[in-house]
Amino acid sequence: MIPFCLVSPECVLEQCMKFNVTKPNAAPVNVSLYYESLCPGCRQFLVFQLVPTFIMLQDIMGIDLVPYGNAQEKEDQGKYIFTCQHGEDECLGNMIETCLLSMLGINAFPVILCMESGVDVLKAAQPCLGVYFPDTKWDSVMNCVKGDEGNKLMHQNAVKTNALKPPHEYVPWITVNGEHTDALQDKAMDSLFNLVCSLYKGDKPPACGQGLKKKTNSYCMN
Amino acid sequence: MIPFCLVSPECVLEQCMKFNVTKPNAAPVNVSLYYESLCPGCRQFLVFQLVPTFIMLQDIMGIDLVPYGNAQEKEDQGKYIFTCQHGEDECLGNMIETCLLSMLGINAFPVILCMESGVDVLKAAQPCLGVYFPDTKWDSVMNCVKGDEGNKLMHQNAVKTNALKPPHEYVPWITVNGEHTDALQDKAMDSLFNLVCSLYKGDKPPACGQGLKKKTNSYCMN
Repeated sequence: MIPFCLVSPECVLEQCMKFNVTKPNAAPVNVSLYYESLCPGCRQFLVFQLVPTFIMLQDIMGIDLVPYGNAQEKEDQGKYIFTCQHGEDECLGNMIETCLLSMLGINAFPVILCMESGVDVLKAAQPCLGVYFPDTKWDSVMNCVKGDEGNKLMHQNAVKTNALKPPHEYVPWITVNGEHTDALQDKAMDSLFNLVCSLYKGDKPPACGQGLKKKTNSYCMN
Repeated sequence: MIPFCLVSPECVLEQCMKFNVTKPNAAPVNVSLYYESLCPGCRQFLVFQLVPTFIMLQDIMGIDLVPYGNAQEKEDQGKYIFTCQHGEDECLGNMIETCLLSMLGINAFPVILCMESGVDVLKAAQPCLGVYFPDTKWDSVMNCVKGDEGNKLMHQNAVKTNALKPPHEYVPWITVNGEHTDALQDKAMDSLFNLVCSLYKGDKPPACGQGLKKKTNSYCMN
């Protein structure tokens, strides 16, 4: 099991241990993002706010990504057929990201960031996986995407999205510790970083600007 | 000319205009990073601090990347021969990133982030370029890397690094608005995000947690 660090397994062991010296002493702030893979506002929030914030505050926050958004499903002979707001490509993007999350857990985040920040979300998927998980075969992702596993996982995303209270009116739709209000949504869209720092009840980490200094930094001496 | 937004040219036009609604009214905080491509501490600072901070604070900050670090050069018949702390591979990584910066300007940042956060910095270079600049040929980068252009550019990095006052003692070596002190280095390593927010003399942007609300957010309505 690789400790997560938004970088590759190889660097993680060395770098995470030095980075994560903050010992969290309160529950993490959990941010859930209900989104769809080709929605510009979703890509913007994911690339400009959610992932950079998580990179810096991973000691005190959790993220749940739910790629489904404004999609719809209908059941047909025990399987589900999905229709997506931005067409077939979006359904495929949602499914790839869902399978990545299922296979890699939070280690899928750098891959998804890479996809969502690229020129073409779908074309970026395979090279992005290769950059972070060179030993994971693209075929294993596509087996999930095209098979029963992906179909089942996407249905779970549908159930989760449709169970939102209040129901989502748009995407990106954000919940913080399971709660959605207009005020939380606005604050998250304005500065998720500051929202997470302000909501965290434990000792603030250095990244929040009020914490203890990190004990070690890693330098390459001349 | 593409306005920079740490995402692809395609998304930029749409997304940047919505994101960059802060009108800067003071000089940006300029952060320079003297580093080398395979140094773990450099990769850590670049991936965990510098780029995420820049993604969120690009309205009020500038970045200068100088890949050279603890390398050394000697002149031989009008060309320079470089020796790098982490060997030949590091020299190649430094050179690729130098050529990318020369060719793409700040638009090279997502490519360099992708490389430095990947499992293998060198192997990641070509796929990372493809994700963000599918129309830029890898050969054009390698022409720079192997030719006089790259040699000249790397010599400029050497001159710039060797001109540091005080001289650098290790990498990552950080200057803020051209200045290096132990205190600035420590603050930058602890939380560059908070350092930049605190040093910026103009109205703080929303990301700093004190600014005006952004006027528009981009949603995909149901």
